Amino acid sequence: MKKPSIAKGTRDFNAQTLFKRRYILNTIQKQFEIYGFEPLETPSFEQLETLLGKYGEEGDQLIFKILNNGLDHPNKQEKTREALEDILIGKANTNLTERALRYDLTIPFARYVAMNHHNLIMPFKRYQMQNVWRADRPQRGRYREFMQCDVDIIGSDSLLHEAELLSIYSRVFNNLNIPEISILINNRKILAGLAESINATDKMMEMTIAIDKLDKIQWDGVEKELQNAAFNKEQIQKIQAFIQIQNKDNTQLLEEMEEELKHSKIGQEGIKELRETLKYTKHLCDSEEYNNIKIQFSLARGLNYYTGFIVEVATSAVKMGSIGGRGRYDDLTGLFGLKGMSGVGISFGIDRIYDVMEELELFPKTIQSGVQVLFLNMEELAIPKILETMQVLRNKNIATELYPKARKMGQQMKYADKKEIPYVIIIGSDEWNNQQAQVRNMQTGEQKLIAIKDIQEEF
Amino acid sequence: MKKPSIAKGTRDFNAQTLFKRRYILNTIQKQFEIYGFEPLETPSFEQLETLLGKYGEEGDQLIFKILNNGLDHPNKQEKTREALEDILIGKANTNLTERALRYDLTIPFARYVAMNHHNLIMPFKRYQMQNVWRADRPQRGRYREFMQCDVDIIGSDSLLHEAELLSIYSRVFNNLNIPEISILINNRKILAGLAESINATDKMMEMTIAIDKLDKIQWDGVEKELQNAAFNKEQIQKIQAFIQIQNKDNTQLLEEMEEELKHSKIGQEGIKELRETLKYTKHLCDSEEYNNIKIQFSLARGLNYYTGFIVEVATSAVKMGSIGGRGRYDDLTGLFGLKGMSGVGISFGIDRIYDVMEELELFPKTIQSGVQVLFLNMEELAIPKILETMQVLRNKNIATELYPKARKMGQQMKYADKKEIPYVIIIGSDEWNNQQAQVRNMQTGEQKLIAIKDIQEEF
Repeated sequence: MKKPSIAKGTRDFNAQTLFKRRYILNTIQKQFEIYGFEPLETPSFEQLETLLGKYGEEGDQLIFKILNNGLDHPNKQEKTREALEDILIGKANTNLTERALRYDLTIPFARYVAMNHHNLIMPFKRYQMQNVWRADRPQRGRYREFMQCDVDIIGSDSLLHEAELLSIYSRVFNNLNIPEISILINNRKILAGLAESINATDKMMEMTIAIDKLDKIQWDGVEKELQNAAFNKEQIQKIQAFIQIQNKDNTQLLEEMEEELKHSKIGQEGIKELRETLKYTKHLCDSEEYNNIKIQFSLARGLNYYTGFIVEVATSAVKMGSIGGRGRYDDLTGLFGLKGMSGVGISFGIDRIYDVMEELELFPKTIQSGVQVLFLNMEELAIPKILETMQVLRNKNIATELYPKARKMGQQMKYADKKEIPYVIIIGSDEWNNQQAQVRNMQTGEQKLIAIKDIQEEF
Repeated sequence: MKKPSIAKGTRDFNAQTLFKRRYILNTIQKQFEIYGFEPLETPSFEQLETLLGKYGEEGDQLIFKILNNGLDHPNKQEKTREALEDILIGKANTNLTERALRYDLTIPFARYVAMNHHNLIMPFKRYQMQNVWRADRPQRGRYREFMQCDVDIIGSDSLLHEAELLSIYSRVFNNLNIPEISILINNRKILAGLAESINATDKMMEMTIAIDKLDKIQWDGVEKELQNAAFNKEQIQKIQAFIQIQNKDNTQLLEEMEEELKHSKIGQEGIKELRETLKYTKHLCDSEEYNNIKIQFSLARGLNYYTGFIVEVATSAVKMGSIGGRGRYDDLTGLFGLKGMSGVGISFGIDRIYDVMEELELFPKTIQSGVQVLFLNMEELAIPKILETMQVLRNKNIATELYPKARKMGQQMKYADKKEIPYVIIIGSDEWNNQQAQVRNMQTGEQKLIAIKDIQEEF
């Protein structure tokens, strides 16, 4: 028999890991609900056509497609054969595959809003914590199945939402005790203003992609990319001046940028939006939290649908990429025929947050909710009384178990040791004859003899 | 633009539904942990070979297979073409599909135990609450994506586990307030004893399948099935006599069956096991709970891997199939090369439990955890103070929001109404000038004027 294996890029999660993940997820979920967001869950798979064409060509390749069932049905054979020809040249064909696994949470959310907007109360505030699947090459920290955690408001362009979301970031990372948090913010309109001011509105995308790489490839690299994209010397100088507006306090940064982009209407709009967002945010954060929020004009968040506010979170305490991000989008549901719904959202990178907390040993010891009390199985006559006592303890929410067989005491104690059960209760025949029990504290080794009827008072 | 749609047989879950599901899942999960079970999660997809051949031919057809990615790679083309020929005649071929969505939780659990048994503490007690996918024809109450909820002990044949599991059923359904619960139990060894006593051990499966349908097709139907399976008249009479041992108390039933199967060793073993299971269970349940547990010798649980104890739960308060079931299996991990691991488990049918509770209106009103306090957006000058007050309320775990735009009061109140927000706080310019706020109870319509600084004391 072949040894069983797990599919590449996927993980089994054992109890220790799940208790830690649960701690992270509960901390986040609690804040979402306190801020007035409601949960939503969409199906694991969508119609293929809902997903295709939404993530660029590369994204389409990474979508896991599900084989149609009933392919062996005779009248499907010809169509299936034709479909395969399409598949072989890289096209999707619904005769072979009609469904695909969720690639992110955003597109299914847009699909949900477009289908249900008549019944939704606008603005609609939802959070979603679900798995997504990508046929990426697995590597350290990159999985084919992983959880995304998004919170969005759709149907409102109020900048209060940006401020509320920044405050959620602050609170969650505070509550998780993650140190040295920076919440970097920017506004796409400021980047658009830059493009406008150098007469390169048509090359906004190339410019944004290049600027976005500043951290990775430094200015020399960005300059080369801009040259390759046929930006002229003057334009490049202006971009460099723009990027150099940094490392000051937010108020100064906004003033300098206001001057830099004084001729761009859209640029001024972006500056005004950032200023207003920060004004609100100040009243939602304490000063330490507020100081973690920093404008970074080079922040671009790559190739995507953002149109205003953008944000990215990192900690400098661990070498790790961003642990959160996203921004405002003006027309996400337009993909599904519902126009004019501005929205804004942020995400939490659960796997990376987990890794950061693990590395910094930030998980409280108390979250491992294992068995508290183990009764050893020694004296058959005592079993009925033990079972009844267990139920009393369980009614007090104390996780309790009885070793299932009357094995040697050493073996039973080893089970308690390995499972790190803090208390073991021993009722041998001597104890039973006296209606007594030994209660052993496994950490201290202390053991005391008490009446069986008093066990329930001990915990 | 084509209107977006959701994949057939799948569901979006909105907040109302999710709060109710969460209530069910939390109630169950809490008991699992109090009884000493730990969580496990396995990946959504497995290697196809892990799943194929484990669910019978029909099951194999219902497994959702995932198309391999990178099919357009030139050297894969020929293989893919060959693979399609296999697919067209109903065979799986890993050149087209190497992965498949989880069909149940049992096989991935067995795969996990087989891969990790050296590191697991035995007996291993785990629970798992995750989605599974089946390419069934969707119909009312049958979905292509649905949640399963299993709890198992593996690596121990102690009957204490059966008793503990019965007690978990009792507690959970008690805690959910579901009335008229029957927990039907039987032991496959008793059915094996019947087969033995009529010299039909080789036709145990046909006999079991026929008996299992008693509820649906009554005795006449079962008789016909048995005749078709070439059971003779004498055998059929004996089966009928066996089935007629019912509707008595458990002790009497066991006595009569002991007599009926007096010549079958395996039958006697099954009776002994049931008796011992009930003996333990009595000390884990109160008398009302214990009375809900009934032996039903015709219970067979169809075609599957159970070898001892079997169980099925239903409520007679609603017309609905079983809401839980399963049993003991002696060699599940043997499928993956790990022999001699006896296990036992039960399941909760989450969707049906949901439907039962919905129909009987058993969900507590308090589980809808929506926004508690809405601040209206009236006076721009008041916003900073409102934001600060919101954070104070949120620190007290009160879900609070501010209407995002200074719209007409009627529109803002409508939002509060639709979202059933119990308290609305109004700070217009008059109130602001006096540093006061109107606090309106939306249920009673009562409204009181208080100082803004006292708002936090109100909740």
